[in-house]
Amino acid sequence: MRYTFLGPAGTFTEQALLSYTGADAPRVPAVSVPAALEMVANGEVDAAMVPIENSVEGGVTATLDAIAQAQDARIIAEVLVPVSFVLVAGEGVTLTDVTTVSTHTHAWAQVRQWAADTLPQVEYLPGSSTAAAALGLIHNESPGYNAAICSPIVAQQNPELQVLAEDIGDNKQAVTRFVLVARNGQIPEPTGADKTTLVIPLPVDRPGALLDLLEQFSTRGINLSRIESRPTGEFLGSYFFSIDVDGHIYDARVRDALRGLHRVSPGIQFLGSYPRADLRHVETPEFHRDDAFDAARNWVESLFPHGRPEHLRHGI
Amino acid sequence: MRYTFLGPAGTFTEQALLSYTGADAPRVPAVSVPAALEMVANGEVDAAMVPIENSVEGGVTATLDAIAQAQDARIIAEVLVPVSFVLVAGEGVTLTDVTTVSTHTHAWAQVRQWAADTLPQVEYLPGSSTAAAALGLIHNESPGYNAAICSPIVAQQNPELQVLAEDIGDNKQAVTRFVLVARNGQIPEPTGADKTTLVIPLPVDRPGALLDLLEQFSTRGINLSRIESRPTGEFLGSYFFSIDVDGHIYDARVRDALRGLHRVSPGIQFLGSYPRADLRHVETPEFHRDDAFDAARNWVESLFPHGRPEHLRHGI
Amino acid sequence: MRYTFLGPAGTFTEQALLSYTGADAPRVPAVSVPAALEMVANGEVDAAMVPIENSVEGGVTATLDAIAQAQDARIIAEVLVPVSFVLVAGEGVTLTDVTTVSTHTHAWAQVRQWAADTLPQVEYLPGSSTAAAALGLIHNESPGYNAAICSPIVAQQNPELQVLAEDIGDNKQAVTRFVLVARNGQIPEPTGADKTTLVIPLPVDRPGALLDLLEQFSTRGINLSRIESRPTGEFLGSYFFSIDVDGHIYDARVRDALRGLHRVSPGIQFLGSYPRADLRHVETPEFHRDDAFDAARNWVESLFPHGRPEHLRHGI
Amino acid sequence: MRYTFLGPAGTFTEQALLSYTGADAPRVPAVSVPAALEMVANGEVDAAMVPIENSVEGGVTATLDAIAQAQDARIIAEVLVPVSFVLVAGEGVTLTDVTTVSTHTHAWAQVRQWAADTLPQVEYLPGSSTAAAALGLIHNESPGYNAAICSPIVAQQNPELQVLAEDIGDNKQAVTRFVLVARNGQIPEPTGADKTTLVIPLPVDRPGALLDLLEQFSTRGINLSRIESRPTGEFLGSYFFSIDVDGHIYDARVRDALRGLHRVSPGIQFLGSYPRADLRHVETPEFHRDDAFDAARNWVESLFPHGRPEHLRHGI
Repeated sequence: MRYTFLGPAGTFTEQALLSYTGADAPRVPAVSVPAALEMVANGEVDAAMVPIENSVEGGVTATLDAIAQAQDARIIAEVLVPVSFVLVAGEGVTLTDVTTVSTHTHAWAQVRQWAADTLPQVEYLPGSSTAAAALGLIHNESPGYNAAICSPIVAQQNPELQVLAEDIGDNKQAVTRFVLVARNGQIPEPTGADKTTLVIPLPVDRPGALLDLLEQFSTRGINLSRIESRPTGEFLGSYFFSIDVDGHIYDARVRDALRGLHRVSPGIQFLGSYPRADLRHVETPEFHRDDAFDAARNWVESLFPHGRPEHLRHGI
Repeated sequence: MRYTFLGPAGTFTEQALLSYTGADAPRVPAVSVPAALEMVANGEVDAAMVPIENSVEGGVTATLDAIAQAQDARIIAEVLVPVSFVLVAGEGVTLTDVTTVSTHTHAWAQVRQWAADTLPQVEYLPGSSTAAAALGLIHNESPGYNAAICSPIVAQQNPELQVLAEDIGDNKQAVTRFVLVARNGQIPEPTGADKTTLVIPLPVDRPGALLDLLEQFSTRGINLSRIESRPTGEFLGSYFFSIDVDGHIYDARVRDALRGLHRVSPGIQFLGSYPRADLRHVETPEFHRDDAFDAARNWVESLFPHGRPEHLRHGI
Repeated sequence: MRYTFLGPAGTFTEQALLSYTGADAPRVPAVSVPAALEMVANGEVDAAMVPIENSVEGGVTATLDAIAQAQDARIIAEVLVPVSFVLVAGEGVTLTDVTTVSTHTHAWAQVRQWAADTLPQVEYLPGSSTAAAALGLIHNESPGYNAAICSPIVAQQNPELQVLAEDIGDNKQAVTRFVLVARNGQIPEPTGADKTTLVIPLPVDRPGALLDLLEQFSTRGINLSRIESRPTGEFLGSYFFSIDVDGHIYDARVRDALRGLHRVSPGIQFLGSYPRADLRHVETPEFHRDDAFDAARNWVESLFPHGRPEHLRHGI
Repeated sequence: MRYTFLGPAGTFTEQALLSYTGADAPRVPAVSVPAALEMVANGEVDAAMVPIENSVEGGVTATLDAIAQAQDARIIAEVLVPVSFVLVAGEGVTLTDVTTVSTHTHAWAQVRQWAADTLPQVEYLPGSSTAAAALGLIHNESPGYNAAICSPIVAQQNPELQVLAEDIGDNKQAVTRFVLVARNGQIPEPTGADKTTLVIPLPVDRPGALLDLLEQFSTRGINLSRIESRPTGEFLGSYFFSIDVDGHIYDARVRDALRGLHRVSPGIQFLGSYPRADLRHVETPEFHRDDAFDAARNWVESLFPHGRPEHLRHGI
């Protein structure tokens, strides 16, 4: 198996990939999430690790949008990585010397309080990634800043960088969720502790459509563990929802919900069913289990023992 | 085709049967609704006409209970009969002579106001049917009453009865609904103006179960045209519901609702899909039509192009 | 306090009244439920005991309809009476002599199986009440029947009646629920184990109206313990619902639900809040308790610290 | 009135402010949304114009988070601004010379397709705002890029910038929504075409809580025009929702919904009721209007004509 990940090397995304594959997996960084998914679609690699959600900053919108547009993508695993930041600088620079700091805007958002307390006068310069900001200190002659905020890994891998402050995130419990995306058709078998990820456009011409969508889950006892709204870009008020639910597409109640959702919103996309990173088993009441669905189907079939007339065989 | 009906001859039920079959249908009266359904079950007759609901008095509980217990009954048609009552007596009796009146309690309930206004001093004696009360005036030596309330037909068929007052129902728009019940397996083809009749026990161990049941209809755009609660007889608070909904079991949305209902309440019974007496066509939004169900099923199937693994083929 | 009850003396209804008042309460029988309620409305008596529901036969429709029409009636208590039947006859009559049995149709329905097993050839003659049927054996010269089915009390009070068979009800757990109805304005204080009885017309011009009504309860965590549908009599499909819910009108969540229900169905009637006969305490989650309602109201008020402009002071 | 806006000068936000106030309003730019809201809270200015939502990029998370934290903020108006971008460079630079482009990441996201088609080799450098990126071309000696993407206004105001390409947004209908935020207590009077903005934490310990929240709107006929989920930052799966609904807090149905929402989620915040920018009037069915709420309240009050006992006067 060959992998890609949202690069450059040294980001939390590479860390997520290695925690899933072990240290020696053949891997290449991608310059963007769409580029990573493109490599999967092309067959250049077998799967791509990309960030999807941060407990502090929320959904990674670029990823949500990119997966929603990749018709054939399937999430086959998720990985949770605790987020920890360090402040680094070149040799000889001390904390009091720091005047301008660069990092990714998402990282900056997560250390804002620490920065206000520790470096109240510092200026911030947006960087394209945490790793790029850190490496710029080594490889650029005049990067325009004299410190960077990055993951501890980058500092370890680059001894030229000296760590001025450790564990500077405002929220010590911060965690980022990454997903491993593979090509169409791959669905890991259910484990009893599974998630299913969906993208569902909100039908605009039906008031109450969101309630209709959510009822498709609730009437089948399916719990939502994540819901994010994103604009479709067409006009204000045109949304799609990125949703994670408990359960696997091989559970009858999930398939039944998908059919109901498709009727309400035919543009629905299935992004995958895969084991939960936290391995938490989902309890399902008896009447929402496969047996109850089988019994219900058999009962309805028994009502026309000779089958339905040929011209009336629509639907299930 | 041979028929039975809730007798004796001359009741509104025979009138309902004849309006459906024409005047010459071979028919025998039954002494009770369970007896009529028994004759259908035994094959003695092909179908039974029985009253199910009166616009003034409500559900005919004996019929609701009897059909609910007859596992193989199928309603194949419904007939609406306007209800009209006459006061009859033996020869020589005038309105002022009337001291005691007999009729079925349901009929008495429908002429109560007229009786209070016209015959304020009269006593009431319950009769086993409107026709039996009327015929008692002719065939019994001392019936214990000297007038009866019955349908106009009985008076026409028995010239010994003289009509003292006509059209004496308190509600001139009163109508009774009758259903024709046949043996298992018979389902008339859909006409686009159909009803489906169900009997659904209310699960007692689930608060909110009634809402769960009704949501199975509402999330599929299915309208209820009748809902009656009846005790199961087991204990206070133990109910079943007798429900008519718009639509036919050959409509995908109805089958889908039946499956959902069966999961919530596995004791559900299907009593038949049949044309509405009023021929009123039901409008269904696009996303609740057969095409939408077919598209939804096909979409879900397309998600596993190689099918599901053999050991995971539960559910639909 | 003076009372009336659905007579004649010796019925289960008198038994219900005495179990509530003790043996010596001044009381007069009424000839019908509307007559009993009329005596309350007129001030002839202070309260009326009437049957409202039987665990086998269901709602007592005459009572449901009569209370629904009595604008000022208030239920102030409920009583449960186990139902037990005896077969009685005049002196010298043995079980094998019995050819015709009379009783109220509701009682007959509850001993049907016993009668089919024990007296398969017997004929049934409807009576106006169980007590009237039994007393007819003593006071009528030729009542037209030679046995009756009644409550054990009637047999005890009338030694001329001999008991041919005891405890002949098909369902040994059968119980009838009675309610004590008083005049307007009387609301017993809440006990923590209370019921509220409502009559709610189903708005006919709104599909989904029943769901709208039930949601008014479910969104406030209010459980339904009884729901009965009854025709309004106007036309087929025109219903009202007679509903018992857990809770007292002095509970904020019940008042809030009543306001919501009134908007959906302005013809709603409040028939009373009163202690449950079974004394079962109702558990209510914190967010549906009075404190939560008070906090919610205070919060909304705090949003306009100077009050609302005078011309905008509609609503609460 | 003095105003602030998310600076620097020349951004779309200043344009939004001027389209609301007219050209001469006294105004100062703020360095961030929190800083702008702080100036309002301090009384330095009377109101702040900040971006809240873009039709392509979605909610402006910094604004959503900042308003949610500012307890006393009240939105008093909204402004819609069509979004249009230009590519600018210093004198003598032509389109083919462009090697590196800087702009705000939100702007870059909105011209990505145009850039891929027109300047496939160009590199992107994140800027802190569109205006800052453009002005850097003039004021910085070596800014690290030789073109910028900004609003047409900046180009007009700075003749040193030459426009290399106009109207380069991928979505020509793109629009950004801004809101004007004032201090506590200010609620504009209802116009019949109003919006109310709420922030509602999702209770984590109640499965189905989102459905419970949405039902508070649906049972009162209140339509949602925007719903955005944002992490609270505490842990994965901990969300709040930023919601716009049709209607004004001076409408009884909105206040009633707020009370219901407060019970489900006591941390709810009211951010304001204000006229819709599109002036679209909201149709409300009769049973959800102030009159129906008044009638419902009066009916419930009429049920205890002498009031409630003193110790039972909780709730409304």
